[in-house]
Amino acid sequence: MKTFDEALDALLSKAVLTTQTEALPIESALGRILAQNITSVLNVPPHHNSMMDGYAVCASDAEAIKAGDVFKISQRIAAGSIGQSLESGTVARIFTGAAMPEGADSVIMQEEAIEIEGGVKFSNPSFQPAQNVRHIGEDIAEGAVVLSKGHKLRAQDLGLIASIGIAQVLVFQPLTIATFTTGDELLEPGETAEVGKIYNANRYILAGLIPRLGFQLIDLGRVADTLEATVEALKQAASVADVVITTGGVSVGDEDHIKSAIGQVGHLDLWKVKMKPGKPLAYGEVAGKPFIGLPGNPVSAFSTFNLFARPFLLKMQGQQSVQLQPLWLKANFNWSKKGFRRDFVRAQLENRGQETVVTLFPNQGSGVLTSTVWADGLAVIPEDSTVSQGDYVAYYPFNDMN
Amino acid sequence: MKTFDEALDALLSKAVLTTQTEALPIESALGRILAQNITSVLNVPPHHNSMMDGYAVCASDAEAIKAGDVFKISQRIAAGSIGQSLESGTVARIFTGAAMPEGADSVIMQEEAIEIEGGVKFSNPSFQPAQNVRHIGEDIAEGAVVLSKGHKLRAQDLGLIASIGIAQVLVFQPLTIATFTTGDELLEPGETAEVGKIYNANRYILAGLIPRLGFQLIDLGRVADTLEATVEALKQAASVADVVITTGGVSVGDEDHIKSAIGQVGHLDLWKVKMKPGKPLAYGEVAGKPFIGLPGNPVSAFSTFNLFARPFLLKMQGQQSVQLQPLWLKANFNWSKKGFRRDFVRAQLENRGQETVVTLFPNQGSGVLTSTVWADGLAVIPEDSTVSQGDYVAYYPFNDMN
Repeated sequence: MKTFDEALDALLSKAVLTTQTEALPIESALGRILAQNITSVLNVPPHHNSMMDGYAVCASDAEAIKAGDVFKISQRIAAGSIGQSLESGTVARIFTGAAMPEGADSVIMQEEAIEIEGGVKFSNPSFQPAQNVRHIGEDIAEGAVVLSKGHKLRAQDLGLIASIGIAQVLVFQPLTIATFTTGDELLEPGETAEVGKIYNANRYILAGLIPRLGFQLIDLGRVADTLEATVEALKQAASVADVVITTGGVSVGDEDHIKSAIGQVGHLDLWKVKMKPGKPLAYGEVAGKPFIGLPGNPVSAFSTFNLFARPFLLKMQGQQSVQLQPLWLKANFNWSKKGFRRDFVRAQLENRGQETVVTLFPNQGSGVLTSTVWADGLAVIPEDSTVSQGDYVAYYPFNDMN
Repeated sequence: MKTFDEALDALLSKAVLTTQTEALPIESALGRILAQNITSVLNVPPHHNSMMDGYAVCASDAEAIKAGDVFKISQRIAAGSIGQSLESGTVARIFTGAAMPEGADSVIMQEEAIEIEGGVKFSNPSFQPAQNVRHIGEDIAEGAVVLSKGHKLRAQDLGLIASIGIAQVLVFQPLTIATFTTGDELLEPGETAEVGKIYNANRYILAGLIPRLGFQLIDLGRVADTLEATVEALKQAASVADVVITTGGVSVGDEDHIKSAIGQVGHLDLWKVKMKPGKPLAYGEVAGKPFIGLPGNPVSAFSTFNLFARPFLLKMQGQQSVQLQPLWLKANFNWSKKGFRRDFVRAQLENRGQETVVTLFPNQGSGVLTSTVWADGLAVIPEDSTVSQGDYVAYYPFNDMN
């Protein structure tokens, strides 16, 4: 039996980075993984500019400013227009974001100015040279790498790339993931209920999880529960997709044909992982494409997809940082039964005044899919451990599994 | 000036729930908001079933089981098949998930069974009636509401709906949000840099934030910086979309035409909000459609979209719970300068052993867009407050702003 960490390491070591890239306009690149570093060819801000609406002045006039002398307003500089060089003894009316004129190095805000006949004077005893000016390259210096290859693009990243004038980025093409469903005991939703049969939940869990991560899902549908049909489905899946994922059929004693079918078109390792829910996990190859076999139980399929398949697929997709970082938060529960497997229990956060605590769903049975619907994340009960109320536990929010 | 909470309450009170719904197959409903309660018409599990591979037995045989008597194996029940009524004194071979035969009420796991000639005997001194059986309706009882109107559908929710046999759900149609860009000082990425001009970042921030929330974005592009063109753009935006959002042009002293243009086709309230970044926020109506004017500064536009526009739009979209819940975590910083505005500072989480702390980006200037790219969330410095290392602060992860 493998520990959770051993299994994850072993799986990640098999992930081969995709080489398929494409150039996209940034407005279409949300959620994609960068296949290049983004290097700035300019300074941000591109010039010294005013942080507020007011008057650009020469620092050499500091004494006259403090003395309340009247200055001639020699020009008016709106954002986007370019001023003339500023002569000492005069000031320029200036607006937020406008480039500072040559010669000027400070801005006095309009609230501290009194416009009078012939010019303006200031009530600003605390005048400081260089005040209220944003300096060239203060945010981004020319030549700096602002985003690295392997970064997943969020809205603010698109804004940053735009802000340095770049309209197009090289990203990895989304992986295609093929899946299909076998099992005579399964009904599809919409079909009439039958005694002894259960509705297929895993197909729809995967139909959410896979596109949510930005991958292209190819759902090959229901496959007849025979060895021949399963072999054909595996071959087809491997021919159309980068990765093949199925659920069920990989436990010891399982009654279906996935294991023998993979034996005919590739190879399979069956892993027992010291985790709950989960335990059986299969990794292999089908016609040269990676194959992941998740457990058939829906809670286990959901958990192992997020904990194993997700980082594996993201690593193949080129994402730099694929492992989840836990939040360490106080347990609002007691867990008195030590287990030899690491337990990923369905949990929610709750705020009690200014304290955030972790609360558990009462029924942690792995057959209870409502636990994953009630929950906002998974909390970890480590191997061979108990947890007492107030102990710190690791918590993984579902919102981070995107 | 409004406090942050006053402004948010005022804005949310203006949100009118959409009435446009559509029926979708569940595999297409990821991220959509339910427009109906989902009520189960069946029990889950639909029948008593075995939690493991083993032998179904009658509880009335408990003494004979403990005594090590040999039982005849009268039948074999795989998942999906229906067994015969079980007679006392006999057992049924049974597999995980298979329906319990009538008469049987317990399962003994296969590891505790010894098959011998003529039957099977058990080494199970701790045998308990009803053990290893999942009971009918244990997860979901017939008639129970499993998901409520206003819930946003995640992968596990799709799985749950499938598991009770429902193939199609009623959801709200995604709102359409129109936006456009004005401002002579702006260049689009890809255009040649010019002194005195800056690249348009807000257009691309919105091109990420709006679709990320599931809304349909209608970007009307660049509009000439004249009153007439701005009026036309506003009319067009209101005619094609449910909500109009623009950035910039709503501060006191701003030089563009948004304010006077809205005066011609609707009305506008300019709010000053005691927050940073942010402060100016405009809410109004354009030809009967809600209008939100975000600040022009990209960090402020990003922050106020997430803190104000996001909950407003989600409420219009029919989502039940739209306000962010903070994580309360320890500050890994000192903040010594009290401000009268609530400060939403760009922050990251860091794990130090089994403690999660909040770390700040060194430059919190609102012109510094790199702060939002470095950050994973916003931490709150309350009004008129300082923060010392180790104090608890409220933290809002960007991953929760989806």
